[in-house]
Amino acid sequence: MDAIEVGVLGATGVVGQQFVSRLARHPWFRCTWLGASERSEGKAYKSVAPWKLSTSIPGSAADRIVQACVPGQGPKVVFSGLDASVAGDIELAFAAAGHIVVSNARNFRMDPLVPLLIPEVNADHLSLLGEQRQAKGWPGAIVTNPNCSTVVLAMALAPLRQFDVRACIVQTMQAVSGAGYPGVPSLDILGNVVPFISGEEEKMQSETLKILGTDGGRTPYAAAVSAHCNRVPVLDGHTITVSVAFEQKPSLEEIADALRNFSGRPQELWLPSAPQPPLVVTEELNRPQPRLDADLGGGMAVTIGRLRDCPVMDAKFVALGHNTVRGAAGAAILNAELMHAEGLLV
Amino acid sequence: MDAIEVGVLGATGVVGQQFVSRLARHPWFRCTWLGASERSEGKAYKSVAPWKLSTSIPGSAADRIVQACVPGQGPKVVFSGLDASVAGDIELAFAAAGHIVVSNARNFRMDPLVPLLIPEVNADHLSLLGEQRQAKGWPGAIVTNPNCSTVVLAMALAPLRQFDVRACIVQTMQAVSGAGYPGVPSLDILGNVVPFISGEEEKMQSETLKILGTDGGRTPYAAAVSAHCNRVPVLDGHTITVSVAFEQKPSLEEIADALRNFSGRPQELWLPSAPQPPLVVTEELNRPQPRLDADLGGGMAVTIGRLRDCPVMDAKFVALGHNTVRGAAGAAILNAELMHAEGLLV
Amino acid sequence: MDAIEVGVLGATGVVGQQFVSRLARHPWFRCTWLGASERSEGKAYKSVAPWKLSTSIPGSAADRIVQACVPGQGPKVVFSGLDASVAGDIELAFAAAGHIVVSNARNFRMDPLVPLLIPEVNADHLSLLGEQRQAKGWPGAIVTNPNCSTVVLAMALAPLRQFDVRACIVQTMQAVSGAGYPGVPSLDILGNVVPFISGEEEKMQSETLKILGTDGGRTPYAAAVSAHCNRVPVLDGHTITVSVAFEQKPSLEEIADALRNFSGRPQELWLPSAPQPPLVVTEELNRPQPRLDADLGGGMAVTIGRLRDCPVMDAKFVALGHNTVRGAAGAAILNAELMHAEGLLV
Amino acid sequence: MDAIEVGVLGATGVVGQQFVSRLARHPWFRCTWLGASERSEGKAYKSVAPWKLSTSIPGSAADRIVQACVPGQGPKVVFSGLDASVAGDIELAFAAAGHIVVSNARNFRMDPLVPLLIPEVNADHLSLLGEQRQAKGWPGAIVTNPNCSTVVLAMALAPLRQFDVRACIVQTMQAVSGAGYPGVPSLDILGNVVPFISGEEEKMQSETLKILGTDGGRTPYAAAVSAHCNRVPVLDGHTITVSVAFEQKPSLEEIADALRNFSGRPQELWLPSAPQPPLVVTEELNRPQPRLDADLGGGMAVTIGRLRDCPVMDAKFVALGHNTVRGAAGAAILNAELMHAEGLLV
Repeated sequence: MDAIEVGVLGATGVVGQQFVSRLARHPWFRCTWLGASERSEGKAYKSVAPWKLSTSIPGSAADRIVQACVPGQGPKVVFSGLDASVAGDIELAFAAAGHIVVSNARNFRMDPLVPLLIPEVNADHLSLLGEQRQAKGWPGAIVTNPNCSTVVLAMALAPLRQFDVRACIVQTMQAVSGAGYPGVPSLDILGNVVPFISGEEEKMQSETLKILGTDGGRTPYAAAVSAHCNRVPVLDGHTITVSVAFEQKPSLEEIADALRNFSGRPQELWLPSAPQPPLVVTEELNRPQPRLDADLGGGMAVTIGRLRDCPVMDAKFVALGHNTVRGAAGAAILNAELMHAEGLLV
Repeated sequence: MDAIEVGVLGATGVVGQQFVSRLARHPWFRCTWLGASERSEGKAYKSVAPWKLSTSIPGSAADRIVQACVPGQGPKVVFSGLDASVAGDIELAFAAAGHIVVSNARNFRMDPLVPLLIPEVNADHLSLLGEQRQAKGWPGAIVTNPNCSTVVLAMALAPLRQFDVRACIVQTMQAVSGAGYPGVPSLDILGNVVPFISGEEEKMQSETLKILGTDGGRTPYAAAVSAHCNRVPVLDGHTITVSVAFEQKPSLEEIADALRNFSGRPQELWLPSAPQPPLVVTEELNRPQPRLDADLGGGMAVTIGRLRDCPVMDAKFVALGHNTVRGAAGAAILNAELMHAEGLLV
Repeated sequence: MDAIEVGVLGATGVVGQQFVSRLARHPWFRCTWLGASERSEGKAYKSVAPWKLSTSIPGSAADRIVQACVPGQGPKVVFSGLDASVAGDIELAFAAAGHIVVSNARNFRMDPLVPLLIPEVNADHLSLLGEQRQAKGWPGAIVTNPNCSTVVLAMALAPLRQFDVRACIVQTMQAVSGAGYPGVPSLDILGNVVPFISGEEEKMQSETLKILGTDGGRTPYAAAVSAHCNRVPVLDGHTITVSVAFEQKPSLEEIADALRNFSGRPQELWLPSAPQPPLVVTEELNRPQPRLDADLGGGMAVTIGRLRDCPVMDAKFVALGHNTVRGAAGAAILNAELMHAEGLLV
Repeated sequence: MDAIEVGVLGATGVVGQQFVSRLARHPWFRCTWLGASERSEGKAYKSVAPWKLSTSIPGSAADRIVQACVPGQGPKVVFSGLDASVAGDIELAFAAAGHIVVSNARNFRMDPLVPLLIPEVNADHLSLLGEQRQAKGWPGAIVTNPNCSTVVLAMALAPLRQFDVRACIVQTMQAVSGAGYPGVPSLDILGNVVPFISGEEEKMQSETLKILGTDGGRTPYAAAVSAHCNRVPVLDGHTITVSVAFEQKPSLEEIADALRNFSGRPQELWLPSAPQPPLVVTEELNRPQPRLDADLGGGMAVTIGRLRDCPVMDAKFVALGHNTVRGAAGAAILNAELMHAEGLLV
């Protein structure tokens, strides 16, 4: 198979760097185009991307000349790591010009015709694309992945839909890398907790229900979700604690079995970025922990631990996912892998 | 008024150091006796207490010779910062020998005849002491203060009892100083979250209901409490997020008013350690934060912020307290102040 | 004595907040004027100063209306916490308009006619002011305090001038609060070290020699200084390690005595902010440490420890000072106290 | 080639875990024997090793039954991650029983007949082994690697020997993983610096000169070394700042060239763990940084940056190495690889 050429919108930011780094060693995709703001246009990538990853800047990208984010140029398939302040207009222009935009930005996530995709959870939401094309008049398409804390919750709840989740209270302890660069000032977070992240609770509450919903997410899942979002001095890895109530109360064993046996299209298709299994259930008393568990499954698995009875709701547990992998660039790449496998990138 | 002589059991540990430090500048109490393990007996305090506070070791304590924790010696009133592994036997021996033990240890907290005291919340639980003396046959007494995370929750819920709290889900982000010294290894917590603290969730769930209960705590408060306890890389200050449901659902304004107007015996009596007011309600979007708010009211106030509707329960908010002040030594000293004001230290 | 009215230039920044906070409880000075950028002009201080201190915003400042930094208004004496990007022009304008500017900014520090003052070290440099007034034609004046890491080194070296310091190699581990707000991004410093601070090594190397020099600093001290500057994940307190060589090699005891006996005009005059003593020499093996020692002497003392032989130079030691107190606002306030005591604020 | 069977002494500690983890994916060695204290004897490895690495416990080791550290059992070649308190006796017993002990412990490092080996720097020191065998009467052997901060300095200085290093002042900022587990209490290091590590400065000062010396290290290198050692809140990666003076002062370009062109036996032999190149010289202003650079060369490279003139000595720079890889398990494994290539493991 020939490599599929792809580009990256917003390539110089932290999410963009993640795209560039992961695509450099991807078996299917070859990144041949890097787009960023006008400030960076015409310059070598390495000179305008303030590299923040512990892996070196890929040789294939270092000297590539950065382009402006103007549609019609570059490969048909583009990943978007754009900041929300500009993603709306640019992604729309690219879709309208025939590009397939696989986006990490929040702008189109709640659009009823745009899939908010977690391939293990709602691969069927890709069926929206036909309608999207027709209604929007785009020769291209837009597909999104969820917010970095939402994905951890949605993946943990997905296998529990069989017990009819009625309500869920989730509290997050989110890593600073989720805020990009420069992001959170050190004076705010060193040895501190900030119990507020702008817009985050609303995103978790609405995105989760769209993801778990039916009819491409247009019928949201019928549960109540309440989120408490906090920033903590952790580099990578969002930890969440969850209490959940069911219509059909299962035993803890049934819940554990449902989590352990959870699997989806990416596992079935052995997509390159698919973690096997997607959910890792740990029995250890004090896990998951971001430093020890965020990299499981190449950063694409979600780890769940401390499953136990909840004195107020039915059950409670801890879940953890890598926010810049499963919660950003890795998520979008898995989305593109699924789309390719389903013949939707042509 | 003459100073009241007091001693400290477990004076060399981190809680013991807090007692020594705070008592050195107390207007009523004078610390004249320091007890510790046999290893430290007969040595100067400064040579056996590995000082961990940012205030200097008090001159009045530095050269004091440490004694063994043997009852019958030292002042009638002793504060206990003993580790739970030894506190049970030693505190019992001291009470049996006629000492009044004002303890921060967990051993007797759930004893039905021992007050688990927060002076603003359940000053009336001191009425247990007569019965305690009779039933136990102690010429002395034992009074305890709650666990360092429980006190934050219990103070926040106390003014809401008027709306009949039905259930509450609380999640904590606890500072490392709560684990004593050496406590949490840095390899476990630097840039990490540990979603488990042994016994902590059970303590929060049971102690809260005793504190808010009636008949000296023997009739626990009739609400369901579920706790998720986490350790985060913060030095001082436990932050908690709370969702709460009521039998008589109040408006957010009514809740805010109840919190703001909360006051108790310590405020009424102007006890030296009493914060005025005990609960600080902040309107700022991203507060309370441990680094900025833990020291409010000399570390004795609890700060509450982000009061808002909860999509699952009725309301949710963030609360914060200083775990080694309001959650340990400061709490016990306030207990002793109340007991003195009520004539119970004689 | 009537309070001396003072103002603060750059009142909304982190250094400005330190000025406001410390002046609110100052026995001599009363802060009655707050200046900031046009963006803040006309607004209540509390609404434009993103408060970053663990002490509350002073009641006397919270509702004060912020003014533009235009000279001729406000009190004669103004403290400057301005950013270097604007301090040059504004401070000059204020001095030219008759204000006495006591500045923490770096812009005029190396001006041969501007005292770079540490009251314990070079109080005599204030004699430059007459010449400054004449040569510059300013009815007012400018006095500066050193960079936050320089002051720790200069105070440690000052008493050693009697042994003729020949050379000194210093390495710093600097707190993030030294970089202001937003300052250092958390992604850069959490669990990390950044071995570079722009311009800092040059400042330490040049400012130290001016401070220790004669003729108001116009004849720099004749020693070679080499600095390695690093940022570490510490909130407050700059730690430095120093190796020093002398023309007249003293014994370690002689060095320790010189440090211990060091004292200056602030101590002699019992200035309100003067630490007694200015240098604290500790014998403890693993001290000073920022968390435990930065607040010594109200944050105005410098702590020195681990004095020992250096296999390459003559002696080596560790020193520590509070960077936002002795290294910023506290330093400027001590400068103003000395100037007042010397009759130079009229 | 058949795999070479190896064992690990002290397999349950943090260094032992590093050995187990790295050996599980080693192309030459197969770890078939795990030794630890009597407490762990007879138990499955996974049940007694409190796993602290972010990679999972290897499947090949998880269920292996741990043995006592008694010589005569297990493979001929054993790696030692033993604590210094027991390493002396056990390693001696193993060597006396015919084992080849490749040790990370400090006990035999300064023994004149034991190579203190960095394969790039002093591969010829292995020639001591014949004499060692004879003089000690050991049928086996002991080879050691340097302390985790020493190795960074020694590798940086090795290529500069051509300019005759006269003196060097080094200051370290060391990660907490260097202290093992439980190691440094979080209360000591969170947001703090500890300017003292017991015995570390002495080790850096003496080991460096043995490593750079001749006649198997028995003639130490003739330079003066002075170390300032500090612990900082970093997880992995020791950063050092170095000022160095030469007999034959080179230009900065000559130094940079010497560092860049440095290579040794491991590179020549393409040993599996050899970084290519061993020293990475960076031009970026603010590098190396532990979070971004510690993993270079699989954690086996040392990164050097900020090479510039020193106003006191001749040149100064920053260097960084991964303390648990190049400074511990990885170092010992590279030593064994060299020994195997040289036919010394039979």
